[in-house]
Amino acid sequence: MTRLILIAAQSLDGFIAKHDHSGTDFCSPEDRAFLASALKDFDSMIMGRATFQTLQERISASKSTRYLRKIMTRQPERYADLAKPDLIEFTNASPAEILAELAARGRQRCALLGGGETYSRFLDSGLVDELWLTLEPLVFGSGTPLATGRLENRFRLASMETLGENTILLRYRK
Amino acid sequence: MTRLILIAAQSLDGFIAKHDHSGTDFCSPEDRAFLASALKDFDSMIMGRATFQTLQERISASKSTRYLRKIMTRQPERYADLAKPDLIEFTNASPAEILAELAARGRQRCALLGGGETYSRFLDSGLVDELWLTLEPLVFGSGTPLATGRLENRFRLASMETLGENTILLRYRK
Repeated sequence: MTRLILIAAQSLDGFIAKHDHSGTDFCSPEDRAFLASALKDFDSMIMGRATFQTLQERISASKSTRYLRKIMTRQPERYADLAKPDLIEFTNASPAEILAELAARGRQRCALLGGGETYSRFLDSGLVDELWLTLEPLVFGSGTPLATGRLENRFRLASMETLGENTILLRYRK
Repeated sequence: MTRLILIAAQSLDGFIAKHDHSGTDFCSPEDRAFLASALKDFDSMIMGRATFQTLQERISASKSTRYLRKIMTRQPERYADLAKPDLIEFTNASPAEILAELAARGRQRCALLGGGETYSRFLDSGLVDELWLTLEPLVFGSGTPLATGRLENRFRLASMETLGENTILLRYRK
């Protein structure tokens, strides 16, 4: 089994992007540093196509062969020229199928990086083993929600710590 | 000046009520106990009319004369028969006017108890001095949001503690 860890940074009121902005420009440097460091313990990532595009420059520049990145899109064929086997793969498979494939290919720890639609699909399928939430000290009132739908996922608190003076990291387990 | 403290319990994704439920039936006993105990340090409360109605039985049963409760509604005259001077007062005044009146009447610490629309109006006016957020270990995907609009309120972390095994209380200051 591949262990799936949802990693997100959000406002106190649950928005992973502010108002009509895309991306995580509201995040503190401490959260960025945490994410960069935390990802070293993973061997795979899942993200939606829009999230991939916000990270594309960084991913393309990376020389690392550590990560198998599964990018979820309804139209994988449209992104065929960006694909690199074992590094960047586009898929329209279901959450369960993607995780089964990662397991079959020997991947042990997968970071679920968003966005909201991707988080929602995995939460809705009950496949999220851990939730690592960075809380920035902001209230937005609107933006991209962490998740949508009629979910009722319950977790157990594993740890809480500060990443910076005002930024908190909470870790939960299923 | 009256110090205004927003107190709310929410899911991890920022919902103060689940899906189409009203009320805080998702909250842990630990959060209920915290709220009951915390309110002893206040001399006044502000809430919206719908929140008042979910608390009405408890408020009517209370023998305490400690709290001046300001209930926000567009139609205060409609609730005139429920009003009790110095204890339960209905108002359509603005957030700033309500706080100015509380200060003029010698009230020092006011708890802002919701719901979402009431929270939003005070946040939008920049009148919230502290934010006390209970985080239950749940993800709902939908429900009543803590706040709505295009807010960008930034706070400073004052403290974090656990209320129960899986429930966290975060306190922020302006």
